[in-house]
Amino acid sequence: MMAKFVRFDSGRGAAYGVLEGDKVFPVSGSIFGNWEKSDYGYHVEEVKLLAPCEPTKVVCVGTNYREVIEKKGEAAPEEPVIFLKPSTSVIGPEEAIVIPPEVKELNFEVELVVVIKDRARCVSPEEARDYILGYTCGNDVTAKDFMEKGKPWTRAKGYDTFMPVGPCIATGIDGDNLAIRMYHNGKLVQDSNTSDMIFGVAKIVSFVSHIMTLNPGDLISTGTPPGKGVLNPGDIVEAEIEGIGRLKNYVK
Amino acid sequence: MMAKFVRFDSGRGAAYGVLEGDKVFPVSGSIFGNWEKSDYGYHVEEVKLLAPCEPTKVVCVGTNYREVIEKKGEAAPEEPVIFLKPSTSVIGPEEAIVIPPEVKELNFEVELVVVIKDRARCVSPEEARDYILGYTCGNDVTAKDFMEKGKPWTRAKGYDTFMPVGPCIATGIDGDNLAIRMYHNGKLVQDSNTSDMIFGVAKIVSFVSHIMTLNPGDLISTGTPPGKGVLNPGDIVEAEIEGIGRLKNYVK
Repeated sequence: MMAKFVRFDSGRGAAYGVLEGDKVFPVSGSIFGNWEKSDYGYHVEEVKLLAPCEPTKVVCVGTNYREVIEKKGEAAPEEPVIFLKPSTSVIGPEEAIVIPPEVKELNFEVELVVVIKDRARCVSPEEARDYILGYTCGNDVTAKDFMEKGKPWTRAKGYDTFMPVGPCIATGIDGDNLAIRMYHNGKLVQDSNTSDMIFGVAKIVSFVSHIMTLNPGDLISTGTPPGKGVLNPGDIVEAEIEGIGRLKNYVK
Repeated sequence: MMAKFVRFDSGRGAAYGVLEGDKVFPVSGSIFGNWEKSDYGYHVEEVKLLAPCEPTKVVCVGTNYREVIEKKGEAAPEEPVIFLKPSTSVIGPEEAIVIPPEVKELNFEVELVVVIKDRARCVSPEEARDYILGYTCGNDVTAKDFMEKGKPWTRAKGYDTFMPVGPCIATGIDGDNLAIRMYHNGKLVQDSNTSDMIFGVAKIVSFVSHIMTLNPGDLISTGTPPGKGVLNPGDIVEAEIEGIGRLKNYVK
């Protein structure tokens, strides 16, 4: 089944819904289990779209595109390199990425983000797809200043607003074969396909689930293709993935 | 006010309580705000103590004891080095630390853990104490195998069961002057005082709050003194901190 789940606020608090065309239909039940669509749909312009779910954690994968490895002349990693962002780094569409005063170089990185459907612990790559609800667009915002040798990546990656996600969770699409692009102030700066990923989504979900239990709504961001660049106040960044949509964020 | 908050299960699900002597009195309300003690207390042996709260994130500080720096002959860090553990790594007293099959060297590290009381964002060191509910004992379990150069620390630190905490949250004590000890199979192997920390609790809470918003119940683990050692199946580790108590865990 193909659906586009959103979280939105119509002025009456956060709710889940289904996006169909330019309408958002509130759903009852749980998007992670059984849900039912209401009869009345809001026009998408009437509501504020929020981050499409509320993860207990965000797991990210480092270098995962072949073209990045080739450009660096490095060997491909044998296993996914993972790191964490706190749930407090998550923001939704049209929200502002805030450049911390102590950061001189802030990078954007468009990434395909896997949304977990069911509690997953030690699942095989073959089973992994049953634990995936769908996919959303993400931006792994990174303070280059703090990516110091021998240090953990937490400060560089974990500030509030450093993980924009959205606009929706698209189900029923093939995460391993999607055009993925980033527009920086309207200019196309990253342009690839998730088929260039070294580790595909099933392998990544399986790998992470052997380390830490994944909960419904948890996010796994799968690495960025070449072309990441520098953010300045006033910039607009738009992460776009085929079959999902476009995630637009401001920078201040 | 001095109190020892616990989370426990009396067979009717998880609940918060206050530990007084060998009695656990359930509380109504919230330990992070207003609470009231019930008249009836369970004997502590009647209930199962759980991790004393449910953090949305666990922030840890790397090298933070002067004696560790001196032994290594390194310069003290200018700012706290922080990393994250996922909430899924948290276990409570008497629970088992599970050695993953792929890990050859698993280390224990006793640490003082700060429990956050109120939502904290960009608080000064002077304000920080108002955002601390109290302190608990922690064990920053680490797979040495995965502390590879240039890699994030997430895999080494983030497995399920790698963050035992408990047995209680002690309030009204001075986090910067507490005896801290670890017993490995009954033998004293770490023996220090939190006054040897390079960054004290107020500085750490302030520093982290300038990076990421802290939520009530979030944990900050403040680094380990010298003497960390290797865990094997069947081992017993007991982290003990003055004024809090002793956190005992099994290894399998």
